[in-house]
Amino acid sequence: MIKRNPCIANIKAGYLFPEVAKRRREFAETHPDAKIISLGIGNTTEPITPHIDAGLTEAARKLSTPEGYSGYGDEQGLTALRERIAAVFYNGKVAADEVFISDGAKCDIGRLQLLFGAGTEVAVQDPSYPVYVDGSVLIGAAGSWTGTGYQGITYLPCTAENGYFPDLSALPKKGLIYFCSPNNPTGAVATREQLERLVEAAYKNSSVIIFDAAYAEYIRDPALPKSIYEIEGAKKCAIEVNSFSKPIGFTGVRLGWSVVPKELVYSSGESVNADWNRICTTVFNGAGNIAQAGGLAALEPEGLKEMKELTDFYLGNAKLIRSALRELGINCVGGDNSPYIWAQFPGRDSWEVFGEILEKCHVVTTPGSGFGPAGESFIRFSAFGHRSDVEEACRRLAKLK
Amino acid sequence: MIKRNPCIANIKAGYLFPEVAKRRREFAETHPDAKIISLGIGNTTEPITPHIDAGLTEAARKLSTPEGYSGYGDEQGLTALRERIAAVFYNGKVAADEVFISDGAKCDIGRLQLLFGAGTEVAVQDPSYPVYVDGSVLIGAAGSWTGTGYQGITYLPCTAENGYFPDLSALPKKGLIYFCSPNNPTGAVATREQLERLVEAAYKNSSVIIFDAAYAEYIRDPALPKSIYEIEGAKKCAIEVNSFSKPIGFTGVRLGWSVVPKELVYSSGESVNADWNRICTTVFNGAGNIAQAGGLAALEPEGLKEMKELTDFYLGNAKLIRSALRELGINCVGGDNSPYIWAQFPGRDSWEVFGEILEKCHVVTTPGSGFGPAGESFIRFSAFGHRSDVEEACRRLAKLK
Repeated sequence: MIKRNPCIANIKAGYLFPEVAKRRREFAETHPDAKIISLGIGNTTEPITPHIDAGLTEAARKLSTPEGYSGYGDEQGLTALRERIAAVFYNGKVAADEVFISDGAKCDIGRLQLLFGAGTEVAVQDPSYPVYVDGSVLIGAAGSWTGTGYQGITYLPCTAENGYFPDLSALPKKGLIYFCSPNNPTGAVATREQLERLVEAAYKNSSVIIFDAAYAEYIRDPALPKSIYEIEGAKKCAIEVNSFSKPIGFTGVRLGWSVVPKELVYSSGESVNADWNRICTTVFNGAGNIAQAGGLAALEPEGLKEMKELTDFYLGNAKLIRSALRELGINCVGGDNSPYIWAQFPGRDSWEVFGEILEKCHVVTTPGSGFGPAGESFIRFSAFGHRSDVEEACRRLAKLK
Repeated sequence: MIKRNPCIANIKAGYLFPEVAKRRREFAETHPDAKIISLGIGNTTEPITPHIDAGLTEAARKLSTPEGYSGYGDEQGLTALRERIAAVFYNGKVAADEVFISDGAKCDIGRLQLLFGAGTEVAVQDPSYPVYVDGSVLIGAAGSWTGTGYQGITYLPCTAENGYFPDLSALPKKGLIYFCSPNNPTGAVATREQLERLVEAAYKNSSVIIFDAAYAEYIRDPALPKSIYEIEGAKKCAIEVNSFSKPIGFTGVRLGWSVVPKELVYSSGESVNADWNRICTTVFNGAGNIAQAGGLAALEPEGLKEMKELTDFYLGNAKLIRSALRELGINCVGGDNSPYIWAQFPGRDSWEVFGEILEKCHVVTTPGSGFGPAGESFIRFSAFGHRSDVEEACRRLAKLK
């Protein structure tokens, strides 16, 4: 028979979130009366807000009319949406044809590595969202698991000691640096000065940053950058991925975007933007037209107001969780400009703490070690939940005393 | 700076359909009064039918309600939709957990090659849908362009002489065979006996078939197989991709599926289905929930009736085009069990004929050579269009006399 891609064999079995779901399911089976509350996977829970939903519904309805029907659109997305994103999120710092609409940031991350291919050195924040590493292994940019990490991946520890911003002296040359801010899972947001150092380091090392800004709309401190392109020089060394999932609850609707600046070139001088256009037109067929109409509605004044209210709501949840943890004397960061709270349980095993919280409080969390070696002894709490559930979960956390 | 993926450099510039669109645009600019009709790209034109659109609209509306909201679903798709697909299209010959819902067949084709990776030998029908080859080049399964084809790709000519079914004696060993039936672009549908030979040949060569059945719902002859799994033994050697785009006009909505049977194993014995599950959960995040609700509506009795009516309508267009061409003495095949008509212009250059039809008739087609070397001297006519446009195009074709 045909051979297996050796890259797949390199991936450790069990993606983090399916494993969390499995343990939850097993617990539910043995505890049928437990009312389990999930603060685990970052899945939005609140209805899509009225103006944005009207955009979706109207688009779906129009498809049944001769005037309103549309088939294939441009693979790069609706021009109007690309323009609005460039204007609203980037203040015109990027051009519409540098914005590529997609079905989500995770999917873009999977495709982006096709630009650079196998053998590219990759650096990730440790802990980090698992897809950066898993995607790198799939494409052959990372090798086999060594017991503490994958060959070919440089892990940049983000710890309490360094304020969750990594030492940049170990960056790979001519490689890729995945950087997420506001960070998933730590909730840390890099300051302007930190991002300036990051851009400088990437440039010095001839490396490219893939900047994941999926949680940017949770930033409330006006001094904190929401995009890597707020930093001088970033257009020469950074790609940004972003998503409508978390700011407007489109996790199930599927809509995101990437920005690939025209200033970004390979060592050979060719345009990365032109290649990305080619990849998007070759192995992708555009985001859904209904989803894109929803994105357009979200970027109208009424939609932006709803986006602010929805992210405020989840930040309200985050505040409750943070307070509950601090009352218990548990050290935690994040949750002020991000929907994630990163709680420290010194000296303990993450999965063991996960198990204790599930057993005692019937609350599902995410074990920090699932995000990388430096996540050991941490637990990620997600602020995505109904208010009453979050309040109840906070009350139950007292059982950890 | 970072290096370019050498695989991208191998892809010839200019994906076929953007090139067709460019030439159309240029013609429109120099002929502003021409009412151009497109029988080029296979883009659906008719509104989504009432029952199916109600499924979409209702799903979009429900997302604004606390009871009806949904966020991330399973990456593999809604269980109900997987079950309906297994039942409706496969009569239970495949199991629900062998069906993976996606945002479309083209996207699945891009991801599927991750199962086998670089260095896999690939065979394609010639002519064929460009994504099989371009996707193979991107992943490194094919090499550079030699002037007549890509290194590492075995081209299987499908010509008038062999009835558009290829000679199978040249199949690669332990490789991949892309096979599309009803075929894009030739419109040919493989018979049961032909597919039996294909499965036998794949099995004998330890190769895997990627069977593209995106046009299966256009088959009207009950003797012709709509799925590769109608053939004994196919579950051990074939993956199928399919789509809601062409049967119900979801080209813009984005919904497709793949079938990866559990019987399919690599030479090492591992399960391809398990790896596909891993790839879908790692670099994909599921099809949109609104699109999936539309798919479910399409598989209800009323939706299936609408699907039949819509495909009947486009087949009616195909019949008109076929008749018009035959009246002109132009040899053509297809269009009876497929929405494509493959017309032969012996001894002529495809792009030159494309230009003549555009100039004389103001009708956009697709040049056969864009689908592969054996497509030279052919033109593909697509039956996707409004009836009045197709009738007008057929009248204008008389100018080719």
